Amino acid sequence: MPSASACRKSQEKPREIMEAAEDYAKERYGVSSMIQSQEKPDRVLVRLSDLTVQKADEVVWVRARVHTSRAKGKQCFLVLRQQQFNVQALVAVGDHASKQMVKFAANINKESIVDVEGVVRKVNQKIGSCTQQDVELHVQKIYVISLAEPRLPLQLDDAVRPEVEGEEEGRATVNQDTRLDNRVIDLRTSTSQAVFRLQSGICHLFREILINKGFVEIQTPKIISAASEGGANVFTVSYFKNNAYLAQSPQLYKQMCICADFEKVFCIGPVFRAEDSNTHRHLTEFVGLDIEMAFNYHYHEVVEEIADTLVQIFRGLQERFQTEIQTVNKQFPCEPFKFLEPTLRLEYCEALAMLREAGIEMGDEEDLSTPNEKLLGRLVKEKYDTDFYILDKYPLAVRPFYTMPDPRNPKQSNSYDMFMRGEEILSGAQRIHDPQLLTERALHHGIDLEKIKAYIDSFRFGAPPHAGGGIGLERVTMLFLGLHNVRQTSMFPRDPKRLTP
Amino acid sequence: MPSASACRKSQEKPREIMEAAEDYAKERYGVSSMIQSQEKPDRVLVRLSDLTVQKADEVVWVRARVHTSRAKGKQCFLVLRQQQFNVQALVAVGDHASKQMVKFAANINKESIVDVEGVVRKVNQKIGSCTQQDVELHVQKIYVISLAEPRLPLQLDDAVRPEVEGEEEGRATVNQDTRLDNRVIDLRTSTSQAVFRLQSGICHLFREILINKGFVEIQTPKIISAASEGGANVFTVSYFKNNAYLAQSPQLYKQMCICADFEKVFCIGPVFRAEDSNTHRHLTEFVGLDIEMAFNYHYHEVVEEIADTLVQIFRGLQERFQTEIQTVNKQFPCEPFKFLEPTLRLEYCEALAMLREAGIEMGDEEDLSTPNEKLLGRLVKEKYDTDFYILDKYPLAVRPFYTMPDPRNPKQSNSYDMFMRGEEILSGAQRIHDPQLLTERALHHGIDLEKIKAYIDSFRFGAPPHAGGGIGLERVTMLFLGLHNVRQTSMFPRDPKRLTP
Repeated sequence: MPSASACRKSQEKPREIMEAAEDYAKERYGVSSMIQSQEKPDRVLVRLSDLTVQKADEVVWVRARVHTSRAKGKQCFLVLRQQQFNVQALVAVGDHASKQMVKFAANINKESIVDVEGVVRKVNQKIGSCTQQDVELHVQKIYVISLAEPRLPLQLDDAVRPEVEGEEEGRATVNQDTRLDNRVIDLRTSTSQAVFRLQSGICHLFREILINKGFVEIQTPKIISAASEGGANVFTVSYFKNNAYLAQSPQLYKQMCICADFEKVFCIGPVFRAEDSNTHRHLTEFVGLDIEMAFNYHYHEVVEEIADTLVQIFRGLQERFQTEIQTVNKQFPCEPFKFLEPTLRLEYCEALAMLREAGIEMGDEEDLSTPNEKLLGRLVKEKYDTDFYILDKYPLAVRPFYTMPDPRNPKQSNSYDMFMRGEEILSGAQRIHDPQLLTERALHHGIDLEKIKAYIDSFRFGAPPHAGGGIGLERVTMLFLGLHNVRQTSMFPRDPKRLTP
Repeated sequence: MPSASACRKSQEKPREIMEAAEDYAKERYGVSSMIQSQEKPDRVLVRLSDLTVQKADEVVWVRARVHTSRAKGKQCFLVLRQQQFNVQALVAVGDHASKQMVKFAANINKESIVDVEGVVRKVNQKIGSCTQQDVELHVQKIYVISLAEPRLPLQLDDAVRPEVEGEEEGRATVNQDTRLDNRVIDLRTSTSQAVFRLQSGICHLFREILINKGFVEIQTPKIISAASEGGANVFTVSYFKNNAYLAQSPQLYKQMCICADFEKVFCIGPVFRAEDSNTHRHLTEFVGLDIEMAFNYHYHEVVEEIADTLVQIFRGLQERFQTEIQTVNKQFPCEPFKFLEPTLRLEYCEALAMLREAGIEMGDEEDLSTPNEKLLGRLVKEKYDTDFYILDKYPLAVRPFYTMPDPRNPKQSNSYDMFMRGEEILSGAQRIHDPQLLTERALHHGIDLEKIKAYIDSFRFGAPPHAGGGIGLERVTMLFLGLHNVRQTSMFPRDPKRLTP
């Protein structure tokens, strides 16, 4: 496979070395021609994670990135990396490697992808800096499969350094914009790999649990004809000769599916908010995990299903993603996420009492500010030792028009938020399923009935009582892992100032 | 729970009846007040599907829709429906029901939701018109939970009638616009329930299979800063003070994830095409099932993974959704979907030969027209007896700039489509992972390099060879079930002329 003729301009250096002198190892290294599916060789590539003492003295092929390289006399030590795993590799002048080959290896740009043939050797002293601590690879052949440019916009080791260490020891860390501007490299760090594997796990658990509970997955349109809820914070789309809008939530469609007898539905998809909020927890496009469910008599049937789903997700993450959690904790230390079974459910008035006792002045029908939410989270943690709880029975005045009023107290509503580490991750409610009451409430909110006609009409041909809620995926990931910015848990975040990459 | 005071204007008729005369059953029927989560009664609602002879002589509560009602002297026969299940219910003057109660039941508008208490009785003759053929429900109490308006915009029985029957027997069927305009009702039919349950199953199988294969689920942004591929067919979004675009595919982001070492990724999400195509298979917003995967030596490694995923989906559907398939077949008869293992892979030149043999004149570098695709599907079916196959090695000229050229024949490319029943459901290719070749190919296509700088830069720091593809969910559902319009398999379809509901 090595082919000198395939060398490109950017690869002059290795070429020079290769052609420099008589070299008994010249077939054993080089820059491969671009893999264009020329052939289907019968070669097995071993995973780095499988390089253990069980494979001692075996000759293996691996494909990995050059994480670091360090020449030292007639030897060159490479650290090869594959996702979150790495192994030390040694190229030493001898039967297999020439002086030129060692030099070639030492000069491969970091982050280049190489194919390496080597013998797995047990080491006497554990290699603390690698995940594969008990073996190293004695290199017999090394070919560059894809050469990285020589200057990296950020160093992976800097990108995983805990901030404290950076500050105290004066060592480099990487700021958020540099990370996001060079996301392809930033996502290669062990921390990023762990964050997004865990996030994939959240989606998987969410669906697995709901499918087991008999839910049906639905797909709802993102381009909509009318901006519901008055049209604030909505993105406009040019739709052929007209205007359309991007859906701020799948709620109308989830509710239509309930009216269409699907009974229990969920969806995962993008949600768009044209809100000029530049905070640690707002994005203009995020992923919503949405649930809607018909119930028999009381919306608490739905609250319990949602809370149980979240608790099963938390448990599933702690069971299946312990390695990922620990990897993230190395860079971002935090307490393990605590939750109760069954989930703590507080009523809004109880929360108000706790806050007032802590010196906060708030009216009965006032919404929680972000600082008060966080304070409440701390108070709840102290009193109940849980990072997850439900706040039920919000004042009707602070909820959208379609929220079902409480049957006993007209100032309260059948609505709830759920919190992780003191931040809201879900907002939900029993929805009004009666077209007449819905009309009354819309008028009370000053909403143009023409604009929501289709919505109200959905309930005219028999609608079961129902409730639901929407969960922000990035927030759940952030708060479960104790991270501090939702941009850390969105692969390609969108906010008022960022649309790239 | 019944509460006469809760009656509304539209419910005058039942009210009159209730108040008309001395009525020994007056507590046993009526219109319930709106369920507002007033109480948590200790009552079990039995599923209609569980009403079998095993429950004979038991008293049960059910909640269901009134599908039809038919008064006959002192009796009223109702058909109660719950999703795809239905049962006959009988209200007869006697100990439990008064004359007034029978009249009340007979006057409940179709599609209203009712709570019914009744005794399950074995019947002597099977009830052919119901799914629960061996029992009927002898009603003791009946309360309207949600009253439907008296005039339905379409009749459910018309909406499930096979077109042939409609034409031959002069019976009503429902046209597509009426269906879509009244989607909440149309989705209640047994056919729609089956179609969308099966579609939920496709998504579930897709993910289950890929997670088992070691893939990671990713979430890619839908709002993007630059229109790739020249900017045709892209929707523009007002993004604060600037313009942005809706992603026509997640491809760039999938590829970035490959460059970021995730190795095997998938995503399910909306895809937007501002194409003024008014055909049976084009939507302006559809759901893409997307795959991208690094491979070792040959893109066929990826082709095989994708084909195996689809085959496992087909098998899974046939195993888990036989009832749904049969339900849809009743209205839309079609041959069972056939596929081979391993999947048939034809090269483009072979397909050309088959078409030419059938009398079609086509150039070597010409793309397949829709009629020729369909003809090819029939020829393949005749020759190989499969409804699913791969067409490999498309002419380079008809594929996008980022497609990897064939290493041996510069007019061919490492690209492929997959077909179901003669229609394309997936398009894919090995992508160029070398920034220099990618630049050359973009220039060859006349693409402004500035606009795709971020894309090309993604490959500058070491990129593994990779390939992938995008599947259209609605097309897979349509073609698997042998349906004829993609609007039948999109819950709320979007096309140049339809943005509602």
